[in-house]
Amino acid sequence: MKKLLTATAALTLLAGAASAKEGMFTPDQLPDIARDLRKTGLRLKPDSLTDLTSFPMGAVISLGNCTASFVSPNGLVVTNHHCARGSVQFNSTEENNYLANGFLAADLADELPAAPGSRIYVTVAVEDVTDRVTGGLAAGLSGRERYEQVEIAEKQLVKDCEADAGHRCQVAAFFGGLQYKLIKRLEIQDVRIVYAPADSVGRYGGDIDNWQWPRHTGDFAFYRAYVAPDGSPAAHSEDNVPYRPEHYLKVSAAGLDDGDFVMAAGYPGSTSRYARLAEVRNTFEWLYPTFIDLLEDWVATIEDASPEGSDARIKYESRLAGLNNFLKNLYGQIDGARRVGLVDRRAEREAALNAWIADDAARASYADAILQVDALTDERAAVQRRNFWYNNATRPQLLGAAQRLYRLAVEKQKPDAEREPGFQDRDMAFFKQRLEVIDRRFDPAVDKAEWLMFLRRYMAQPAAERVTALDAALGLGETKDEAALAETLDRFYAETTLGDNATRLALMEATPEELEASEDPFMVLAVALHDTEMAEEEAGKDRSGRSAALRPQYMSAIIAWQQAQGFAAYPDANSTLRVTYGTVLGGSPKDGLIYEPFTRLEGILAKDTGEDPFNAPARQLELIAAGDYGDYALRSVGSVPVNFLSDLDSTGGNSGSPTMNARGELVGLLFDGTFESVNSDWDFDPRTTRTIHVDSRYMLWVMEKLDGATRLLDEMTIVR
Amino acid sequence: MKKLLTATAALTLLAGAASAKEGMFTPDQLPDIARDLRKTGLRLKPDSLTDLTSFPMGAVISLGNCTASFVSPNGLVVTNHHCARGSVQFNSTEENNYLANGFLAADLADELPAAPGSRIYVTVAVEDVTDRVTGGLAAGLSGRERYEQVEIAEKQLVKDCEADAGHRCQVAAFFGGLQYKLIKRLEIQDVRIVYAPADSVGRYGGDIDNWQWPRHTGDFAFYRAYVAPDGSPAAHSEDNVPYRPEHYLKVSAAGLDDGDFVMAAGYPGSTSRYARLAEVRNTFEWLYPTFIDLLEDWVATIEDASPEGSDARIKYESRLAGLNNFLKNLYGQIDGARRVGLVDRRAEREAALNAWIADDAARASYADAILQVDALTDERAAVQRRNFWYNNATRPQLLGAAQRLYRLAVEKQKPDAEREPGFQDRDMAFFKQRLEVIDRRFDPAVDKAEWLMFLRRYMAQPAAERVTALDAALGLGETKDEAALAETLDRFYAETTLGDNATRLALMEATPEELEASEDPFMVLAVALHDTEMAEEEAGKDRSGRSAALRPQYMSAIIAWQQAQGFAAYPDANSTLRVTYGTVLGGSPKDGLIYEPFTRLEGILAKDTGEDPFNAPARQLELIAAGDYGDYALRSVGSVPVNFLSDLDSTGGNSGSPTMNARGELVGLLFDGTFESVNSDWDFDPRTTRTIHVDSRYMLWVMEKLDGATRLLDEMTIVR
Repeated sequence: MKKLLTATAALTLLAGAASAKEGMFTPDQLPDIARDLRKTGLRLKPDSLTDLTSFPMGAVISLGNCTASFVSPNGLVVTNHHCARGSVQFNSTEENNYLANGFLAADLADELPAAPGSRIYVTVAVEDVTDRVTGGLAAGLSGRERYEQVEIAEKQLVKDCEADAGHRCQVAAFFGGLQYKLIKRLEIQDVRIVYAPADSVGRYGGDIDNWQWPRHTGDFAFYRAYVAPDGSPAAHSEDNVPYRPEHYLKVSAAGLDDGDFVMAAGYPGSTSRYARLAEVRNTFEWLYPTFIDLLEDWVATIEDASPEGSDARIKYESRLAGLNNFLKNLYGQIDGARRVGLVDRRAEREAALNAWIADDAARASYADAILQVDALTDERAAVQRRNFWYNNATRPQLLGAAQRLYRLAVEKQKPDAEREPGFQDRDMAFFKQRLEVIDRRFDPAVDKAEWLMFLRRYMAQPAAERVTALDAALGLGETKDEAALAETLDRFYAETTLGDNATRLALMEATPEELEASEDPFMVLAVALHDTEMAEEEAGKDRSGRSAALRPQYMSAIIAWQQAQGFAAYPDANSTLRVTYGTVLGGSPKDGLIYEPFTRLEGILAKDTGEDPFNAPARQLELIAAGDYGDYALRSVGSVPVNFLSDLDSTGGNSGSPTMNARGELVGLLFDGTFESVNSDWDFDPRTTRTIHVDSRYMLWVMEKLDGATRLLDEMTIVR
Repeated sequence: MKKLLTATAALTLLAGAASAKEGMFTPDQLPDIARDLRKTGLRLKPDSLTDLTSFPMGAVISLGNCTASFVSPNGLVVTNHHCARGSVQFNSTEENNYLANGFLAADLADELPAAPGSRIYVTVAVEDVTDRVTGGLAAGLSGRERYEQVEIAEKQLVKDCEADAGHRCQVAAFFGGLQYKLIKRLEIQDVRIVYAPADSVGRYGGDIDNWQWPRHTGDFAFYRAYVAPDGSPAAHSEDNVPYRPEHYLKVSAAGLDDGDFVMAAGYPGSTSRYARLAEVRNTFEWLYPTFIDLLEDWVATIEDASPEGSDARIKYESRLAGLNNFLKNLYGQIDGARRVGLVDRRAEREAALNAWIADDAARASYADAILQVDALTDERAAVQRRNFWYNNATRPQLLGAAQRLYRLAVEKQKPDAEREPGFQDRDMAFFKQRLEVIDRRFDPAVDKAEWLMFLRRYMAQPAAERVTALDAALGLGETKDEAALAETLDRFYAETTLGDNATRLALMEATPEELEASEDPFMVLAVALHDTEMAEEEAGKDRSGRSAALRPQYMSAIIAWQQAQGFAAYPDANSTLRVTYGTVLGGSPKDGLIYEPFTRLEGILAKDTGEDPFNAPARQLELIAAGDYGDYALRSVGSVPVNFLSDLDSTGGNSGSPTMNARGELVGLLFDGTFESVNSDWDFDPRTTRTIHVDSRYMLWVMEKLDGATRLLDEMTIVR
């Protein structure tokens, strides 16, 4: 025993030394880090990962907010349960409660349409368009002018690209605008839900276990992509046929052991690894603490206004979950920043960069650009503080709808190509969907209570943070008392007709004049705030334009500096395809405590209380108690591994990412990070950053032993 | 890395196999388990541990609620910080805030009196008096008669024993009355506080870390025992001199490593390891859940009635902490019972015992006794349920005081020897203290809010659980509404004079007739409830008497059954001196998570937020950051160990127990158990039960490096 425990103790010390794998690399960067990829264990040729249309990258797809992958030649797609749960919910009825019981289509004909708006995006081409975006920019442009010219170029690129029917295109900026890429994706519109385990497996542990380790969540589900018989994307139709992807992943039943190579490909949303110290400080010393204070009040306000079990509560459950999730995240962020010494580390990094720049007179222009970046950072922080409470005071859902509708009417005065992104014809499906969803998420009493809370806090701010247009429209004089304010708001909710979906949708066709003549109080307010909002937007565009001119210089300095030290700098996440790699690895989240790299089936038995979210199906508990592991046990842990940890670098958007072994076989799905990792968006701390995956052996065990998903097991290529 | 982590993974599996050391043995049992003691690592002769007046047991002492030990020939005593904190608080003033700054007497003359009522009890003799207690009992006694005859015998034994001035005696029942021992203790009355680190060391982690691992609490402090110049116990006096104990412990600076032998001697309060299934079920399926529901309401009631920062809140802080602590404990108990399958395990144990009894006709009498024990268990459970809400409804502090005062007046009608224990002359110091403490813990508004809450719940019970005397006295008719009830209670608090300390103390001299004539509403109620209370007490004594006749037979069966399996059965804890032994051992509280056996200084740095209770002294943080370990580092953990885990068997009352190595040297102090261990009072689960100790190396490091307690370091015998 002693020897083992001494080894355990030593682990913590070593864990500090072991470097987790920082880096969300673009596929085209992989040849640059080929040596480390091979050293870490990759057996595929690193170059083979750069081609997005060949194996294995060709199998990795996006669902918009999540990542997924093809796992059969017939368009079978695997992703996280939490990424597909909306589609399960959409098809659930009281008689067929698929959330509670799980859903398994017996054959193709039984596969049900995913939730409205569900899409599968298959990246078919990525092209460097930097020169076409910024090559023709004249010197001496103002920020606003630069912003506009870039936007025009981007819109033209997207328009030309989308001329190829069935595709969705975007221009993505890398390294703060140093590089622009045009990404072309096949947009598959007919997505169907094939199989999802019951919530009691797929979201086992629920919100309680969110960001936690040890974890025992079966966070996987299957979709299938359907296209028209000719292979082109098409809206849902009975005539559609399964899409035949060029590549799909084999599924490993052998799985991984501790220390094995793993990589994940996916679409991480956003990180701030290169944020300047001033932004870090503003965020951690003002923004996050302010948000925490607001969120606690906000959650309490919603809870008070929507008694448990009420219809209103049902409508706000997802918002409450989201706010609580955000709150937990902010606590984790602040805790993590303290633990890693984020502010000090960032200050040290900037000092080191400055020293490197000062080392060589040829680098002087970097220093100048960085000074300007910092000045702009300060300017942005000041604007953020000034607008924070105004932005909250304008959160009511119907006000937002009115503002979007009025803006749409204004934008529609221009030709489509000149309209603001978000208000072009290509955006109208999503625009409509946002108006429709209000029906399911809006309750006037709760919305009013929230608004009152926001306004109360807004009114407590100094004059510099008040907005005249809002004060005038709501009569928020210095003496406005609670009762008078509540009365004003009462009138808004009593008189508005925007609570009606048909009314909202009809207004998508209104002219500015018609809306300006509206007597709906929310529309009146939206019109009253319009000029203020537009002025803020213009100022913001000017800042963005200036940033797009300066930030590439700052990032060039970072890249050169890193290169001088032998590292390849990777761009901050921006929802484009990235590859991250490392090893299966436990860790020590704090002194005296060790995370094992794998959890086991038996952990479910021990955790189970019979009550949601720890209410595994009775049949599953029996199988575990009987030790019925099938072919899926991992000898070194003595059971079927359920979830595992790795040192991969991931963030929101990576959910559902296929986790692959050294041969590119699917060994799991990335679905979460540990609580100690939430701060990694700002600063990747190799000692504590760990990503959580559901193990392919657990997926296969559930499919075979619990749910009898034989049809899918037969369809996939399983490597034993 | 892989090898280490695989070892880590294997640990969890082994941890299940490794048997933690169940057993709180009386010193006279140690020869029976000598073989295992030696096998586990003890280097002293096991027999030497049985003599309470020789080394090392002669150095182990009781503080009443805690354990302590002598660590110098001059009466220097070490115990937990949380056991001595009341004395630090008692001496703290705004100018000399010893809680915040710590206290260190520069010399003997600076050592300050401990809190009033502080005592040090040195066990000087233990005698088996079973025959004198139960030997003369006639057959066929009723429960009530048996109870009384045992009580008479016990009181006589105590009286004779205490004829030796300066001693305090008690008769303790072991194995449910199978064995009685007369325990004679020297009662040292002049106790002084010598040294306590600051709260920010001594209660580092506070309530948040209570029952938690990893832990970094410097839970140690020093008292000194003083006696009259002639060596006899005496009240505090400047003439007193340090007590010279016959034995004291040497302090190890070498400390322990993982897997090393440890033992602890102390005064565990109470356990229920032999409780029958019916009691287990009643406790876990009704009592604890009912209490949890009540406690949540209770805490909220106090918080609502005493705004944060108010004087009332200060008075109720310790009660709130106690209730929250109890609540956390109950959650842990219920969680633990579920995890270990307490009910099933108890049922299996009873079935196994029954089977063993059935194996041999000579054991038939056991079966009969057990049937009767179970019937009595059911009877007790029914009474507990029936009285639960009445008992809560009579909790108001002034009602309790009135009840005790009236009872005292009634008891005083009898000769001292015949009075109920608790009302004899020997009890009056404590009786008075209980009346006095009300001043610091009572606020009428809070007390009333609590009472209202209790009564509201009492009134919701069925008629069988209502008590006529209480209903009549408060006019709790079926139609009594909230407002009327509140008005009734208002009158109690407006008219009572029992809130005044002098009034309460004066009533200690009152006659029953005087109190019966009192118009104080609480006294009127106390008098009105007296007959009911006495009838309940009589019935309770009858049950206890019957239990005292039956339970020894049940325990005899257990002892014989265990012996047949090669185990020595130990009696449930009863606040008498016990020895427990085992090894330094980490563990796995749940699948995927491992507790290391030691925490390190660096864990304090990582945990520190600068805010109570994670606000280590700046100087300490500097010392840690500088890696200034002195002579106290443990190589295998690469730092000074702060706290450590062992598989010792402990419970409340063990706090402060000296933790000794194989040679009987002090290597730490036992101060807590892990959250997964709180259920061990009912069922010792070797997989998860772990005791938490402060390491002697951390104590010495704090004393030397942080607090400069050179005088004490010089006084102790430190083994390097």
